[in-house]
Amino acid sequence: MDEFASIRHWTSGRQSESWQRERGVRLGIGDDAALIDPAAPIAGVGSPYEYIMAMDTMVETVHFNEVTMSYEDIGYKALAANVSDIAAMGGVPLQALISVSVPRQLGPEPMRRLYDGLYACAEQYGVAIIGGDTTSSPQHLVVAVTVTGAVEAGQALRRSGARPGDAVVLTGPVGMSAAGLHFLLAQRERGADALAGERVGQLVQAHRRPSPSVRAGRLLLARGTCHSLNDVSDGLASEAWEIAEASGLVVTLKEQQLPRSGSMAAYAGAAGIDPLEWMLYGGEDYVLLGTIEQNDAEAAQAAFHKEGLPFYIIGETSAGDPAVELLRSTDRGDLRQPLAKRGYNHFE
Amino acid sequence: MDEFASIRHWTSGRQSESWQRERGVRLGIGDDAALIDPAAPIAGVGSPYEYIMAMDTMVETVHFNEVTMSYEDIGYKALAANVSDIAAMGGVPLQALISVSVPRQLGPEPMRRLYDGLYACAEQYGVAIIGGDTTSSPQHLVVAVTVTGAVEAGQALRRSGARPGDAVVLTGPVGMSAAGLHFLLAQRERGADALAGERVGQLVQAHRRPSPSVRAGRLLLARGTCHSLNDVSDGLASEAWEIAEASGLVVTLKEQQLPRSGSMAAYAGAAGIDPLEWMLYGGEDYVLLGTIEQNDAEAAQAAFHKEGLPFYIIGETSAGDPAVELLRSTDRGDLRQPLAKRGYNHFE
Repeated sequence: MDEFASIRHWTSGRQSESWQRERGVRLGIGDDAALIDPAAPIAGVGSPYEYIMAMDTMVETVHFNEVTMSYEDIGYKALAANVSDIAAMGGVPLQALISVSVPRQLGPEPMRRLYDGLYACAEQYGVAIIGGDTTSSPQHLVVAVTVTGAVEAGQALRRSGARPGDAVVLTGPVGMSAAGLHFLLAQRERGADALAGERVGQLVQAHRRPSPSVRAGRLLLARGTCHSLNDVSDGLASEAWEIAEASGLVVTLKEQQLPRSGSMAAYAGAAGIDPLEWMLYGGEDYVLLGTIEQNDAEAAQAAFHKEGLPFYIIGETSAGDPAVELLRSTDRGDLRQPLAKRGYNHFE
Repeated sequence: MDEFASIRHWTSGRQSESWQRERGVRLGIGDDAALIDPAAPIAGVGSPYEYIMAMDTMVETVHFNEVTMSYEDIGYKALAANVSDIAAMGGVPLQALISVSVPRQLGPEPMRRLYDGLYACAEQYGVAIIGGDTTSSPQHLVVAVTVTGAVEAGQALRRSGARPGDAVVLTGPVGMSAAGLHFLLAQRERGADALAGERVGQLVQAHRRPSPSVRAGRLLLARGTCHSLNDVSDGLASEAWEIAEASGLVVTLKEQQLPRSGSMAAYAGAAGIDPLEWMLYGGEDYVLLGTIEQNDAEAAQAAFHKEGLPFYIIGETSAGDPAVELLRSTDRGDLRQPLAKRGYNHFE
């Protein structure tokens, strides 16, 4: 199968032209480039709106391997990680372009499965797949995705807007993806039953099929009290550092208030790992970390809960040189522990 | 140097905020995503305009290696190949996102050079670099680029608009990039002086630093007589096939009228290669192949020449099942030779 036949095999018949038109698309896959109507009304987004653009790449052996992810998972997660960047700006995802660099020995069927997962995520979040590129790769699969979105003009939620005295909030638990990854790698080394009996299913799911917080981002933007927002791709501590540095203040996280998934904690106990390590430094959680006006924090929490969405008030910001600290309650009273800037770093 | 420090080292101070604003950018590198004003006036583009989006990836060992390209060349060409896709729609390039997957042993300095080349191309074509992603790679360098552009709404030049009786036109010579690549690979095998004396400098330049035909695409669009357009990335024959299939007609290329670069022909002679092979199947020329109304062809040519731009009328289209043929003049009269669909195919 040649390159063009492969692309048709992977993509044709997946999304209708009218469905794509509702997302601003005037010309999708098949020409030198795609065409977008930047004035098209977007359902649920006020006019005028700005376009959001982000790009996120997954590389075999760095982000996944044959035991951690199926091809469907790779496609799903590659798009989900990008959608999360749109959520982190308070926006609605619209379109995506996909570049795959395919090992020569792989053949078209695994890639068809990758596109099955990718289109499943696209359907879940309403993303029109409008183009991309297909090349061969000498050895490893690389999936690069560009995603667009829309957000009301001038209202995008950036990292740099936090103010001293804000409440620090989180839209979901952290550390589950890292725990799921640990299980998948441990399973390979120790055999499938080594850690059976723990509730690992949802940890594996959290690693393979993350759920970007698009709805949460929209709710936070609509409140008008959210000053800064980030998605947790590189770990809670690292994302808190980004807000601290971009906004020029201190972020204090309260250990007692960090959401701790029961299955994650149980698995960490069985595996002999401090769950806090995964919660602070695990990454790939794709929940949102933000800061909002202190006096709106509880009302925001109530509003989220009313919609069945998780919402945690996990700390506060204060004036000072950029830093992130963890407030721990010990027998000897409260302890303020500085948190290192490290997260998942591709150059370490 | 960590990931964020590397990105700053490669990108900061390269393009001013005001320069980026003129290209619609409201927020560039540094947050989860970039922000674009889709209503911003774009110099030289009529309103209302549509957005153009394309993505193109270069992979070490597939598209380049250590003898064919310097790091500066890799960066330059990765963006140039993308800009060519905007030119092929008749548009003006605006913004780009860059994803680099960097072998762990490489270190930041070669990447700095890659970004030197990339920003040189960005300056040449007025492209704002607004974001991207940086990951590590187990072995090979991968550079994926997404580019945006603008074109007057409803006027983009597609592959599918050719009509029987059109003139087939080309905005520059073909086969030079393939000849340059042949020289660079032969040089490695036979030593630096093996093919000295030939004018290989411009062939090497054509391979390493292609010049996308943005101005030519704009001129063709403005005439209102151009029915279809493609950029020559995979070879003249392959691109002609794309127009033939998308438009449902026969494309006839006239051998006598194909532009033949003197340095390419001289080098082909010295290397014992039929130059036609490179001209038809070489690829990576990044000139434009299109069809225009027959009665405007000569006027278009005169207009191009007046601007100092090359323009070749190389054939015509006719009704029939999609096909591409080469009209050759031989001792026994004219010969119509069907051209195979092959071009550079990443799955062969």
